[in-house]
Parts: sequence; structure tokens; C-alpha cells
Amino acid sequence: MNNESQPTLLPGYNPGSPEVACSPISLDELEQIKASAYFNDEDASFLRLSYDVLKDQAEELVKAWRAIIAQHPHLSVYSKDLRTGETDNEYSEGVGRRFAQWVLDTARAEYDQKWLDYQYEIGLRHHRTKKNQTDRAHTAPHIRARDLIAFSAAIVVPMRPYLEKGGHSPEMVNRMLDAWWKSMILQVTLWSQPYVNPGDF
Amino acid sequence: MNNESQPTLLPGYNPGSPEVACSPISLDELEQIKASAYFNDEDASFLRLSYDVLKDQAEELVKAWRAIIAQHPHLSVYSKDLRTGETDNEYSEGVGRRFAQWVLDTARAEYDQKWLDYQYEIGLRHHRTKKNQTDRAHTAPHIRARDLIAFSAAIVVPMRPYLEKGGHSPEMVNRMLDAWWKSMILQVTLWSQPYVNPGDF
Repeated sequence: MNNESQPTLLPGYNPGSPEVACSPISLDELEQIKASAYFNDEDASFLRLSYDVLKDQAEELVKAWRAIIAQHPHLSVYSKDLRTGETDNEYSEGVGRRFAQWVLDTARAEYDQKWLDYQYEIGLRHHRTKKNQTDRAHTAPHIRARDLIAFSAAIVVPMRPYLEKGGHSPEMVNRMLDAWWKSMILQVTLWSQPYVNPGDF
Repeated sequence: MNNESQPTLLPGYNPGSPEVACSPISLDELEQIKASAYFNDEDASFLRLSYDVLKDQAEELVKAWRAIIAQHPHLSVYSKDLRTGETDNEYSEGVGRRFAQWVLDTARAEYDQKWLDYQYEIGLRHHRTKKNQTDRAHTAPHIRARDLIAFSAAIVVPMRPYLEKGGHSPEMVNRMLDAWWKSMILQVTLWSQPYVNPGDF
């Protein structure tokens, strides 16, 4: 599937790059977390089914998520340049392009070592450890754990009408949405690791 | 709604008791997290609609969740007595009764100070801070953050057939399920607080 991703067009979106952190957990541990999230091989198939439905809608989805963020100052502050108080448009566009690419990568469901490492990297880039580094930005230095975890609902709930546009039966749409929920929960679990007390994860 | 809960029949289920920890966050902060989880007043209404559908099915739901846990040693270990290696049935039954009560309290959607405090208490009881204390048990001393967060998918995905038993339209079932997802995410966010590095939550 790598031939479909276009890393040169996406600054800072670099799974597999030596700049990306290594996940502190193993692929065997990932399998356990998948089981805890009730995620199985069928879910991977339904995610891949959603790929064709979503591949031309990823930017629209990002717009929908951005509209939610824009309604809430405690969320929109994360893209504001602290020096000016204004939205950092360059940062915001960079994040948005990577967010759209994330939709496609989630739907591809190739959850291998490279993907696992990149989930840890995504966590670090929300956490104070690496926030702003990718885009050399000056926005808020840390996305709070509360917003990182809670926003997973704001990501998946609005997806239903987009998934319905593929012309699949309501039952198939439900299965795709279930798979998206499980993958979202799996990922936000992995993203939370940099936030968690040593030994508690 | 308090007259519907029966604390005397549920050892250790004690919202409002002086033994329950106070949430470190305020009701204003809770409102922000609700917004991050895309939770609104309509969702509270749909949760309350689900109350009548689920009120006689809570124990069946707990059985379904237990069946998932039983399939995975890394999850079932949390109810095993470390001294014998066997499931601690007394602990397990106590937890199960409180889990069923949790279904009803989530559906009631009275997310006030007492509820907020109790969410923090639930987090502490999964974390090494208070695990086993309520039941004076000797099971694994800590539920890992990875399993606490990930299992939220295993809780909500299996709920659809139970919600469908109320005879509501597919659209209404979807709305109830969305509300359950949002509330689940909201709650697991709150439960995660004892796990999170100071200042990162």
C-alpha cells in the first residue's frame, strides 16, 4: 500500500523514518491491546472496505472535525500561536494534511511494527515531549490527556454519513463504523502512553 | 432517581459516601471534557431513553462483557486471587453487581458533582491506588491503563442488539448508541486521571 501514500507531499508525516520514536511495547503486546479493544481480523477487513468509501472524503472529514474544534476555545487554542493569539495557519494546514492521511492509514489497517512505532510518535507529538517540533511552531506546548482521549468520540461519531455514501447496506455501514470505533480506541490507547505514569500503562 | 438505586444491596457501590474520593477537576472542567467528547444535552436524552430498554438487561450485558474477558488471560487475570491462581468468585460477583448498576447510572445521565467524584473513585479502584480495597480482595493489584482504555470498545460495541430490543427505529437505536459511545469515552477519560503524569491530564 506504500505506493499510495505520498510522504514527499506531507511534511512531517513520516512512518518508518529514523526520526520516529520506537514504540516501548512489542507487537505481542499490541495483539493483547487489540483483544482488549475487541478488535479482530474481520474489523481489519471492514476498515479496508471503508478505504474506498473514504478515500476521496478524508479532507471533508478533517473539515468536519475542525468545525467541532472551532466551536470550543479550549480545543482551538491548541492551534493558536502563543506569541500572537491568532491561529497558526501554516501549523494548522500541516496538521490537517497529516490528519487526512491518518484517515487513509487507519482504513488500510496495516498494523505492523512501523505503524505501532508511529502511534507512539503521534502520542509524543500531542504530549509536551514533541508538540510543535514537527512544524517548528509556537502553539500551546501540550494537548491535555483529557482532550486527547475524549476527542476520539468527536472523530468517530460524525463519520456515519460519510460511510453511508459508499452505497453499502445499513448493516455493512454499522460494521464499518464498529471497526472504526475499535481502531480509534486502540489508537488513542497507544497515543496515551507518553501521558501515563511509569509502570501504569 | 436515588430511590431507584439500592445501595444497601450493592456493597462498595457508594456514590455520595464520604469514603469516595473528591474529583480533582471541577464541574466547569467536566463541561469542557463533555464538549471534547462531542457530548450534548440531546445525548443525555438518548441515554435516558436507553434506560427503559436496558434496565432489565444490565445483568445480561455484564455476562456478555464477562464472556469477552474470559477469552483473554491478560484480562481474566484481573479477577484471579494471586494466592491461589483461581478466580475470586466473591470479588467477581461484587464487581459484576456494581458493573450492572453502572449501566443504569450511565443511562440515567445525571452527571453532577456526586457522579463526577464517583468517576474519579472508579479510576482509583482500577489503578493500584485502590484496586482490591473495596472487596478486601487479593487479585492483581493494578489494571493497566492500556486495558482500561481499550476495553471501552468491548463495552459499547456489543450493546447494539440489546438496544434494539426496545422496539425503537434503527435511527433512534443509532442515536442511543452514539450517546453511549460519547458517555463511555467521557467516563474512560475521567477514569484515566489517576494514571496520568502530574500536569499532563
